[in-house]
Amino acid sequence: MTIPTEDSLKQLQQKLQAFIDERDWAQFHSPKNLAMAMIVEAAELVEHFQWSTESESHELSAEKREAVGYELADTFVYLLRISQVLNIDLIEVANAKILLNAQKYPVELMRGKNNKYADYQNQKNV
Amino acid sequence: MTIPTEDSLKQLQQKLQAFIDERDWAQFHSPKNLAMAMIVEAAELVEHFQWSTESESHELSAEKREAVGYELADTFVYLLRISQVLNIDLIEVANAKILLNAQKYPVELMRGKNNKYADYQNQKNV
Amino acid sequence: MTIPTEDSLKQLQQKLQAFIDERDWAQFHSPKNLAMAMIVEAAELVEHFQWSTESESHELSAEKREAVGYELADTFVYLLRISQVLNIDLIEVANAKILLNAQKYPVELMRGKNNKYADYQNQKNV
Amino acid sequence: MTIPTEDSLKQLQQKLQAFIDERDWAQFHSPKNLAMAMIVEAAELVEHFQWSTESESHELSAEKREAVGYELADTFVYLLRISQVLNIDLIEVANAKILLNAQKYPVELMRGKNNKYADYQNQKNV
Repeated sequence: MTIPTEDSLKQLQQKLQAFIDERDWAQFHSPKNLAMAMIVEAAELVEHFQWSTESESHELSAEKREAVGYELADTFVYLLRISQVLNIDLIEVANAKILLNAQKYPVELMRGKNNKYADYQNQKNV
Repeated sequence: MTIPTEDSLKQLQQKLQAFIDERDWAQFHSPKNLAMAMIVEAAELVEHFQWSTESESHELSAEKREAVGYELADTFVYLLRISQVLNIDLIEVANAKILLNAQKYPVELMRGKNNKYADYQNQKNV
Repeated sequence: MTIPTEDSLKQLQQKLQAFIDERDWAQFHSPKNLAMAMIVEAAELVEHFQWSTESESHELSAEKREAVGYELADTFVYLLRISQVLNIDLIEVANAKILLNAQKYPVELMRGKNNKYADYQNQKNV
Repeated sequence: MTIPTEDSLKQLQQKLQAFIDERDWAQFHSPKNLAMAMIVEAAELVEHFQWSTESESHELSAEKREAVGYELADTFVYLLRISQVLNIDLIEVANAKILLNAQKYPVELMRGKNNKYADYQNQKNV
């Protein structure tokens, strides 16, 4: 008999749903409010890096690395929650977006360049 | 013989890593820069809801729902990417954070309340 | 003899410049870093309103109103600072932008509508 | 007779108020919604700098400098608008905040250091 490997993301989403249900918090979780909460968490991540050089942002102390991990977790939890509330499959849209980006930024043209799509389009139109 | 169920998040992370490698983009991906890119995507989500009522933010047109899905995907992709660069296990920190939040916001005290921890702590200190 | 009324914004900018100079902080104030610092402060404002209804966000307690005032101040200070560093006249660009917006959103078409320009343009193109 | 020098900020605020009134847009301008709109504009500024080095963020092309100026203007306009709606004097709170910061970050201790207050406090407690 096969015991299926559990999908880590689905498990996490179930745990999150239970956490919300126990506290009866779904009533506060409009997509509008959750988007606000998510950007607040994203900003707490930004705050860790605002006065760092790029190089310093790679080399975190153990203490800062833990704090950064929790900010990533907070952002992730709200991202999962918005997806739940809107019934959007996060894995599916992420896969679809990576496919779109692969077409938008062709390997041969974008290799080693940080140009944005707009810049690339402008070049095409010249 | 057991064919293991693939973990959806690990597959996505591998796809993302390949996308970056093919374009030689790791050089631009300092945590500092990636945190900036992520909050920009989070803000594009916020923009969809800024003039909506909370109720409207639940009831999206098919067109808006698709656009919102792509903003969630963009935010997710940068979140995954920061985690890769810093070698932080997103599932692990999210599980740890939900556990911490469960202690911080006890069910019996927080049920149906949107108070923040700070407010709750203030009440305790009275 | 006329004692000229001082321009409140210019006075504030001078005070801010002196504050930075005394601490020798200009070295940390790249536009990149300052933009990060500003969005962090903007997010602290958002945090005050994330679980409020729109109506509640109008009716702040004295304590909350003071806290909100300080978040507005923090955002303003970084906005002024970026403008100083890039030598951009904030009043001038704001006046120019209001003029542009007046053309983009004609009174007769936009009265009482919260449509974005994109939506308005789409209607024109039908 | 004294002709008073006009205060540039007050003039701007009056112009903004007239712009809103003509379009009957006050109905959409809850502090909650305006805070969302402001952070969206702040993120558009961040986007200009997300792949730049700090040094590059100082040296903008004429075209980019104009675009950055308009993002600063957009952020400023929403900041002014929130202040109007909440009846908060932006100059007054900014002056008060600079005074508070001057006490929080004493010149003799903070000169040339980008430590945050938290770090400074930690040092004191050692």
